[in-house]
Amino acid sequence: MTHTPLQGFPTLADLERVAAERVPDRVWAYIQTGAGEERSLEANRAAFRRWSLRPRVLSDVTSVDLRSRILGREVDAPLFVAPMAYQREVHPEGEEGVARAAEDARVLSIFSTLSSASLEEIARAAPSGPRWFQLYLQPEFARSRELVERAERSGYSALVLTVDVPVLGVRDRQEAGGFAIDASVPTGNGPGVVPPARAPSFRGPTYELPANAAANWGILDDLRSISRLPVILKGILSLEDARRAARHSMEGIVVSNHGGRQLDGAAASLDALPAIAEEVGSTLEVYVDGGVRRASDVLIALALGAKAVGLGRPILWALAVGGGEGVREYLSSLSRDLATAMALTGRRQIAEIDRTLVQRIP
Amino acid sequence: MTHTPLQGFPTLADLERVAAERVPDRVWAYIQTGAGEERSLEANRAAFRRWSLRPRVLSDVTSVDLRSRILGREVDAPLFVAPMAYQREVHPEGEEGVARAAEDARVLSIFSTLSSASLEEIARAAPSGPRWFQLYLQPEFARSRELVERAERSGYSALVLTVDVPVLGVRDRQEAGGFAIDASVPTGNGPGVVPPARAPSFRGPTYELPANAAANWGILDDLRSISRLPVILKGILSLEDARRAARHSMEGIVVSNHGGRQLDGAAASLDALPAIAEEVGSTLEVYVDGGVRRASDVLIALALGAKAVGLGRPILWALAVGGGEGVREYLSSLSRDLATAMALTGRRQIAEIDRTLVQRIP
Amino acid sequence: MTHTPLQGFPTLADLERVAAERVPDRVWAYIQTGAGEERSLEANRAAFRRWSLRPRVLSDVTSVDLRSRILGREVDAPLFVAPMAYQREVHPEGEEGVARAAEDARVLSIFSTLSSASLEEIARAAPSGPRWFQLYLQPEFARSRELVERAERSGYSALVLTVDVPVLGVRDRQEAGGFAIDASVPTGNGPGVVPPARAPSFRGPTYELPANAAANWGILDDLRSISRLPVILKGILSLEDARRAARHSMEGIVVSNHGGRQLDGAAASLDALPAIAEEVGSTLEVYVDGGVRRASDVLIALALGAKAVGLGRPILWALAVGGGEGVREYLSSLSRDLATAMALTGRRQIAEIDRTLVQRIP
Amino acid sequence: MTHTPLQGFPTLADLERVAAERVPDRVWAYIQTGAGEERSLEANRAAFRRWSLRPRVLSDVTSVDLRSRILGREVDAPLFVAPMAYQREVHPEGEEGVARAAEDARVLSIFSTLSSASLEEIARAAPSGPRWFQLYLQPEFARSRELVERAERSGYSALVLTVDVPVLGVRDRQEAGGFAIDASVPTGNGPGVVPPARAPSFRGPTYELPANAAANWGILDDLRSISRLPVILKGILSLEDARRAARHSMEGIVVSNHGGRQLDGAAASLDALPAIAEEVGSTLEVYVDGGVRRASDVLIALALGAKAVGLGRPILWALAVGGGEGVREYLSSLSRDLATAMALTGRRQIAEIDRTLVQRIP
Repeated sequence: MTHTPLQGFPTLADLERVAAERVPDRVWAYIQTGAGEERSLEANRAAFRRWSLRPRVLSDVTSVDLRSRILGREVDAPLFVAPMAYQREVHPEGEEGVARAAEDARVLSIFSTLSSASLEEIARAAPSGPRWFQLYLQPEFARSRELVERAERSGYSALVLTVDVPVLGVRDRQEAGGFAIDASVPTGNGPGVVPPARAPSFRGPTYELPANAAANWGILDDLRSISRLPVILKGILSLEDARRAARHSMEGIVVSNHGGRQLDGAAASLDALPAIAEEVGSTLEVYVDGGVRRASDVLIALALGAKAVGLGRPILWALAVGGGEGVREYLSSLSRDLATAMALTGRRQIAEIDRTLVQRIP
Repeated sequence: MTHTPLQGFPTLADLERVAAERVPDRVWAYIQTGAGEERSLEANRAAFRRWSLRPRVLSDVTSVDLRSRILGREVDAPLFVAPMAYQREVHPEGEEGVARAAEDARVLSIFSTLSSASLEEIARAAPSGPRWFQLYLQPEFARSRELVERAERSGYSALVLTVDVPVLGVRDRQEAGGFAIDASVPTGNGPGVVPPARAPSFRGPTYELPANAAANWGILDDLRSISRLPVILKGILSLEDARRAARHSMEGIVVSNHGGRQLDGAAASLDALPAIAEEVGSTLEVYVDGGVRRASDVLIALALGAKAVGLGRPILWALAVGGGEGVREYLSSLSRDLATAMALTGRRQIAEIDRTLVQRIP
Repeated sequence: MTHTPLQGFPTLADLERVAAERVPDRVWAYIQTGAGEERSLEANRAAFRRWSLRPRVLSDVTSVDLRSRILGREVDAPLFVAPMAYQREVHPEGEEGVARAAEDARVLSIFSTLSSASLEEIARAAPSGPRWFQLYLQPEFARSRELVERAERSGYSALVLTVDVPVLGVRDRQEAGGFAIDASVPTGNGPGVVPPARAPSFRGPTYELPANAAANWGILDDLRSISRLPVILKGILSLEDARRAARHSMEGIVVSNHGGRQLDGAAASLDALPAIAEEVGSTLEVYVDGGVRRASDVLIALALGAKAVGLGRPILWALAVGGGEGVREYLSSLSRDLATAMALTGRRQIAEIDRTLVQRIP
Repeated sequence: MTHTPLQGFPTLADLERVAAERVPDRVWAYIQTGAGEERSLEANRAAFRRWSLRPRVLSDVTSVDLRSRILGREVDAPLFVAPMAYQREVHPEGEEGVARAAEDARVLSIFSTLSSASLEEIARAAPSGPRWFQLYLQPEFARSRELVERAERSGYSALVLTVDVPVLGVRDRQEAGGFAIDASVPTGNGPGVVPPARAPSFRGPTYELPANAAANWGILDDLRSISRLPVILKGILSLEDARRAARHSMEGIVVSNHGGRQLDGAAASLDALPAIAEEVGSTLEVYVDGGVRRASDVLIALALGAKAVGLGRPILWALAVGGGEGVREYLSSLSRDLATAMALTGRRQIAEIDRTLVQRIP
């Protein structure tokens, strides 16, 4: 067997530790931290530990098939790379490395409005995808429109509208580490792209928040009017909003607390998933991200109703340590472990993963 | 942006750490410790971690308004500075610095009978308020009456009668740190002001406790007879006492375990809040303090029925580090974060904060 | 105020720490350890932390009276010193120091069959008591009878029959510390007194346990036949046994897991208390020990139905540090803190302590 | 008393610590680690801590009898040595030492397909047993048949078919420690014996797992056709599989998560036990292993319905420290402690252990 980038870092904890040494401190502060006291960051992990898996035996599992369909397109695993900004800060290969790795693995990847590489560069790096484009609404809708049109032209097959950042969360630890989300960090989609902003300091009895805080459900009609791409809302945690997304005929939603980076104290993604998936899962596709690290996590999330499961920080750790090749290796390893976990629960196909696979720990 | 006192201490943990270095050890022992084993001190914090917030999206939150009314008076945020004694021990600016900061922020502040500055000095420092006066009953009612009359003359707009200190709590750690609540600590309201006292050592089959332990509900009639100011009872944790406060036509109550400093093992303030607010919240105003640190805490407390939320130790940390200006900066930062948290839960006004904003963590 | 033995050790943790330095390691291993993995030892403490106290206000608590009656005799607090063996190993004053301290405090004390001082010496040291005698059944009933008769002659006013040591628990840590409960440790009640023994090493398909493992409920008739003293069973944790004790007309029971020293994994004493007290508390007196450290613990136990609350290890810590005078000071301090806690919950008399004083922490 | 191998290591923690020093690091990594993040490894221990024991008193327990019947054969304790591979890696005496120790203690032992000693050598070392043979299905059934026939010829009295390893679990920490389960580790049952294998790296949209992943319930008919030995399925955690085992007339099942080494996140063995034992316990014998360390654990498992309780890692620790004699001493000590625990819960015979012996910790 040839040497591979992640060899020598056999556990995920190793990978995280080595990544911490590889990237500059300020970037590490960006990657790892959460909002406020990081309650939601920790809650994401804790939520998985409240469930146990129910192995099933003697099920003839010689052949385990991870293939799934996401919005009708076949992928090789019910996983996706969550949208994360500024990936060249983590490794020179940045989004292009990630895109190539995901393409090779036939796994869906989502790229951020705030990508270091331009969306066109990413598309050229991994033309066959599948790729989705994550949109941060711009102060002027015309600029959002430009981004959407560019994404459509470059072959992104869906729009992921982030709805949980009307204003940027309070990220003390990130700021303490010296990383600010503002024009100081180069992005690839053009100098005019405006990142989400913090609330301004107080100036009277009311706060006037940045322009994209103005978005309401009407924005979805505007988006439909400029693009025929499917639209996914990312950042739903309440049943009410999930129902409303269904009523607005969204193609999907990502149940997410934004990796614990937006509202400290927000519910863990996984805690919000079951009720939402049960209620709207037959109307639209329900995805989840937040706290997913291992194959067992993926299995729990699928059993609780997710159609696909997003990966965030581990992708960046792998990118930091091994570039795109590192990401490929992580995805390959995770898929292999997922196949193992399916075999151990007697599931040969993704469609066989159901609610009986998990139970609450007493 | 100009240099501000708290700059360089970006997280609350930083602030606490630096404050610990700035104040003498014996004062730190006074500020930080709780009664007995500090179960209630810790319980106050733990109680918040049992709730999660439910973000709401696409709600058009460009303008977020924190204004509230407390006893009919408009303030710029549903917060208050809890009454805390001896503030000049923490920083030379003491209560006057705090009063100015709260006035600037148009936030209610409450000052203790045991303030370092006299209540008149505080009033002069921040004449427009809003300010309330916290009363420790004096051994002779005539002395309580003098204090009340002075407060009324100096423009304090309500009386906060502390009812959870018939006798001083058992504060091992404070005493171990060398801080005694007695005549050795200078106070501003006159040499005749008597602080609450510990139970005497045992001298027979019964304990004769200090005079103000004699107070019963009749004291409220006495107070009404000498002042037309609204009366708030501070230190209620049981539904029975809350109901009784309502029957005695109190204007408000503060659900509080006295920062975990009185009865070790007393319920966390937040745990006591929901039932009390539901039962008497339409009859009188229900406030809460204890364990509030961040905007998410404030939001949880408001959602569980508090009309305003009190801040204790963080105010002293900010005072220790930056004087009155530090307090101003802390209040400003907290308000900004509260506006952010409201935006992230789709609330544009305080009145929109309701019980659906929170849920128990499973 | 004159110098007192415990001065300078203001918190219970200080007292414990200093005691650890004062007594030989092997004795410390005897005092502190529990059976097996010490699950029950820790469970005793954890059980208290599942309850919170409900303060009550404005109740006129100038005079707080701790007096109670235990088996009809008035004592100055609803406390008792639990029976603990070998007290001269801890301090030269041993049981005599403890007895004098309890007598001065008018608190019930119970002395062990395995006391370092003879029961007569203890009686001479504290003639007015109240004192009870704890009985370990002897291999021959005649020897048990001798002990009972001696206790009766020396003015012990009740017999406490320990029923949870048919065989000695598995005390790995005590043994690892070099302390064995056997003839190597001198006792005062005569060379013929036999301490409980470990199960023998395996010698075939069945274990023949020491003679006193033979005791069944019939032993109570035997005891009644030789003494008119009230009989209390110590070491009850099940409702079935509590009921049976009531049917056998016992005067009282001590709900106890033997300080976590007998059956590792046995329920915490406090967890077993409420159901037992509710069921048999009107028929006989129900006491509890295990994990009681502070006044709040005492209050919780009383609220859950205990008629009196036993103190174990803290008595030995105080004895180690200050001899009998240390115990007196600890009892005085605990009583004072109990009076404080009663005042803070609006109780003026022990009889006013009821179930509404506590609630489960959510 | 003569010197014994484990003397000087009085607690189990000592034994574990010393064992860690005695065996090579790579072997220690094999013994101690679990799959993935070791959630199931830890869950096994945590599950026991959710139950407490209910002592019973005055039950005349002079004679405590641990004898039980397992599949009709009398043994001296309801324990068994779980099958564990490669025991000569731990100590030169390996399986033969363990077999002799178990035989002396008249305790059932189970030996692995992957034993270091051949099954014939083990049988010669401990001819009277009782011994069972654990079978890993071989790629070709003919090889499985050979193993079964050899076991039958050598006097193994039952077959234990491991059903929770269709593919080897993901054992990061074991691999990080340098231990691979493959042909590099010598085994005694012949060069042709194939250990379970990891899932292959990804090679397209489906994973083709090793041959023994093909096993389904039909394999049981195959086994019956080649042997008249009773068959026990090891590795059942779901009620559905337990029922199915009963319908296939299995003689027993081992409720087990494979020591937390197979599916990370799998339910704790003990958590799965009660429902399974209640449902099928009258049809077949239900055993359990996983996390059992002390007599209290054994008692809890028996009370929750296990007919016998398996020991894993502690056996290897004892083997590492004292060879076969160490195992004998551990078994003897555990039996003695079990007799003690039975006495303290008022049980004289194994048959008296019932569900009333335990309760959930509140």
